[in-house]
Amino acid sequence: MPKLLVIGGMAAGMSAASKVRRLRPEWEVTVLEAGEDPSYGACGLPYWIGGAVVQMDDLYALSAEEVRARGIDVRLRQRALALLEGKKRLRVEDLPSGGTYEEPYDALLIATGSRALLPALRGLEGDNLFTMHDLGDGRRLQRFLDEGRRRSAVVWGTGYIGIEMAENLAARGVAVTLINRSARVMRSLVPEVRDRVLRELEDHGVRVLLEVQVLEAVRDGASIVSLRTDRGDLPADLFLVATGVRPATDFLEGSPVPRSAEGAIQVDETCATGVHGIWAAGDCCQVRHLVTGRPAYLPLGTTANKMGRVAGSAIAGERERFPGVVGTAITRAFGLEVGVTGLSPDQAREAGFDPVEAVIEAGTRAGYYPGGGGTLVHLTADRRGRLLGAQVCGPEGVKGRIDTAAAALTGGMKVEDLAMLDMAYAPPFAPVWDPLLVAAGVLKAKLGR
Amino acid sequence: MPKLLVIGGMAAGMSAASKVRRLRPEWEVTVLEAGEDPSYGACGLPYWIGGAVVQMDDLYALSAEEVRARGIDVRLRQRALALLEGKKRLRVEDLPSGGTYEEPYDALLIATGSRALLPALRGLEGDNLFTMHDLGDGRRLQRFLDEGRRRSAVVWGTGYIGIEMAENLAARGVAVTLINRSARVMRSLVPEVRDRVLRELEDHGVRVLLEVQVLEAVRDGASIVSLRTDRGDLPADLFLVATGVRPATDFLEGSPVPRSAEGAIQVDETCATGVHGIWAAGDCCQVRHLVTGRPAYLPLGTTANKMGRVAGSAIAGERERFPGVVGTAITRAFGLEVGVTGLSPDQAREAGFDPVEAVIEAGTRAGYYPGGGGTLVHLTADRRGRLLGAQVCGPEGVKGRIDTAAAALTGGMKVEDLAMLDMAYAPPFAPVWDPLLVAAGVLKAKLGR
Repeated sequence: MPKLLVIGGMAAGMSAASKVRRLRPEWEVTVLEAGEDPSYGACGLPYWIGGAVVQMDDLYALSAEEVRARGIDVRLRQRALALLEGKKRLRVEDLPSGGTYEEPYDALLIATGSRALLPALRGLEGDNLFTMHDLGDGRRLQRFLDEGRRRSAVVWGTGYIGIEMAENLAARGVAVTLINRSARVMRSLVPEVRDRVLRELEDHGVRVLLEVQVLEAVRDGASIVSLRTDRGDLPADLFLVATGVRPATDFLEGSPVPRSAEGAIQVDETCATGVHGIWAAGDCCQVRHLVTGRPAYLPLGTTANKMGRVAGSAIAGERERFPGVVGTAITRAFGLEVGVTGLSPDQAREAGFDPVEAVIEAGTRAGYYPGGGGTLVHLTADRRGRLLGAQVCGPEGVKGRIDTAAAALTGGMKVEDLAMLDMAYAPPFAPVWDPLLVAAGVLKAKLGR
Repeated sequence: MPKLLVIGGMAAGMSAASKVRRLRPEWEVTVLEAGEDPSYGACGLPYWIGGAVVQMDDLYALSAEEVRARGIDVRLRQRALALLEGKKRLRVEDLPSGGTYEEPYDALLIATGSRALLPALRGLEGDNLFTMHDLGDGRRLQRFLDEGRRRSAVVWGTGYIGIEMAENLAARGVAVTLINRSARVMRSLVPEVRDRVLRELEDHGVRVLLEVQVLEAVRDGASIVSLRTDRGDLPADLFLVATGVRPATDFLEGSPVPRSAEGAIQVDETCATGVHGIWAAGDCCQVRHLVTGRPAYLPLGTTANKMGRVAGSAIAGERERFPGVVGTAITRAFGLEVGVTGLSPDQAREAGFDPVEAVIEAGTRAGYYPGGGGTLVHLTADRRGRLLGAQVCGPEGVKGRIDTAAAALTGGMKVEDLAMLDMAYAPPFAPVWDPLLVAAGVLKAKLGR
């Protein structure tokens, strides 16, 4: 009876385990999870902190007991230490006892995800320093907020977690200062879209400081009292760092599993690593960027779920493919939705394209129809006409327009075809020329097509 | 100095006239409009009746005076009688005087749109019988509603105008009975989606009767008092007929301009008719259906705008193409959004495909995130895997999912590629598996792909 060992009991690992369980009921399926919970919705953590999500239990897809009842042997607080590939075994630490043991496998799925990356900074530790990466982080911050009156926070990092935490800490009555080392927001926002996001944050009382050099974390006993920066001291009751993640693959050091310079595992369309019997999926992996055709590290829950399903299918001997991503992401800053897909002009240049861009503002509904508001649409294309990327921000309808652009990117659509796309129109939902069509028309004219 | 004559001052005609005005400032541009207003937003009429749109003026894109100020000679209440193609002239009736004259042209754009089709039924005329096709219709109904207490209406036709009028008459406190000769709703809704639309209408007090045979309009003097049907008499204070439209092209009888059996003008991708110097655009034309590859009659404002722009560009000697449509449409019935794109299974069969379908219900947001609700997604594919159509209904996000499917259809996407599409995810906007991805996954499994 073959045994599948899955390292990591989150989105990718649990998806794969469930798929194999269904397709191969006779197999033994074991999941080792380093944390205290399997299969949770980490993306909902900011909203649990802010209060929109009331019950933390709601964030679990399944409890450990439910997973076990489905015939998956999930073991919590078990950490992978080293891959003994020649022996088809994994060296594991039992975190509660500190003891180690070797776990055998016939098939191995690496789904260890990512870990929060803390900046190397003197003094950056303390009982009021938080990350927001897993359920344990969420519990710790929730407890801290519940325990006393917390008036102020510094959130370090302007990716989507930083933005969502700024909103949700503000919802708890905390005065938030949001800082970032560079001027970049959500990795790649163009200036027009970025500035609108920053304005929305500031309009809701979030103080934003970009291009800040953090010099030192000033501590008093077990706590940080302020961040010393080139823009002055930033005192606060709590400090949240969301400056990025890296693949949790250190235990693969010395193994033949191929990894990129940043440690992301290289897999093919079936999530196979090329090492016999070993697959990988989720935030510990590179993915293929369908616009550049090259591998990229873009860890996201939705991708992890897809890869997990494909990996489970491949391990069970069925045929599914994960072709890759186009770099789609969305978040919300208070009343403003903001989404991206494909490449920004800078990213396009880096990838060797000759980008041309256009940005427009248009209403989200027919001009005479009440509600809605102005939405910004920024498009990037190669000079030869191929659509390369889209960014949209506005009060509503951003996901739909970004998804439409994502489908267009996936199909390799030209800007002139996007400009004539048969998008849905009725007065409550869009102007007769959808903002995406308007932007494509402007870009088409710029390209002389 | 060449002279462009445009017949029809609505979406297609005004778009073309404006485009030519911009590109060829030296040309003479004349627009003949049979009605009282140029360039209006007819799609907003139901919402003006219901009260969401407060000012009728808001429905005008431009007034006749504004159009003239831009150098377009727009003449109202001028009706095309006959095309004298050999003489490059149009015979026109001046409606106020009843006199006729011949108007010369160098280039002619036919943009006469469509006209409401009244069923052939004894007694079907009266001062309380309405259609909802142009601004004049809207004014008449608004006046009628304002003049007295109107308690009840029969709306005949379950296309989007019938549905929108049911909602907006209900908003005016009128008890609505919505009837249709067949069981079809919005032309092609599959039973699952159709039944949910019907339930939403009935939940909001609209009485719906399908497969009704209307036998006679019973009149008392100048008014209709009831419709006699095989399901009993349907008395009402007002009767609104929205059973469809046909191309307004009767004046082309005997001309060489090519028309389909139903009278829709046949044009190529540049809106040329093939007759020298004559173009056509908008609701009087056939369009190419990009899924079947065949011509279809699908009159919609968004298509008319696109064709008008392309026709204007072509007339001015520039190069733009209108590739066609995929059959996208959206409407709202009270709290339910409903959209379609591509082919239904029946339409697919008629077009020679071997369709396979799947329908799912899923949440519009992450399960733990408040708000949203269940959305139905129905997908149709050819047995070989090509996506053929989508129908979606739910409380939010329908336009985005339909537009995404429309882009996928335009690109000729396969179901397995849609199942892995990189759609935007964050808890307020979607579950980690978007309902569209879930539906594609189920259909993919049915197809054995």
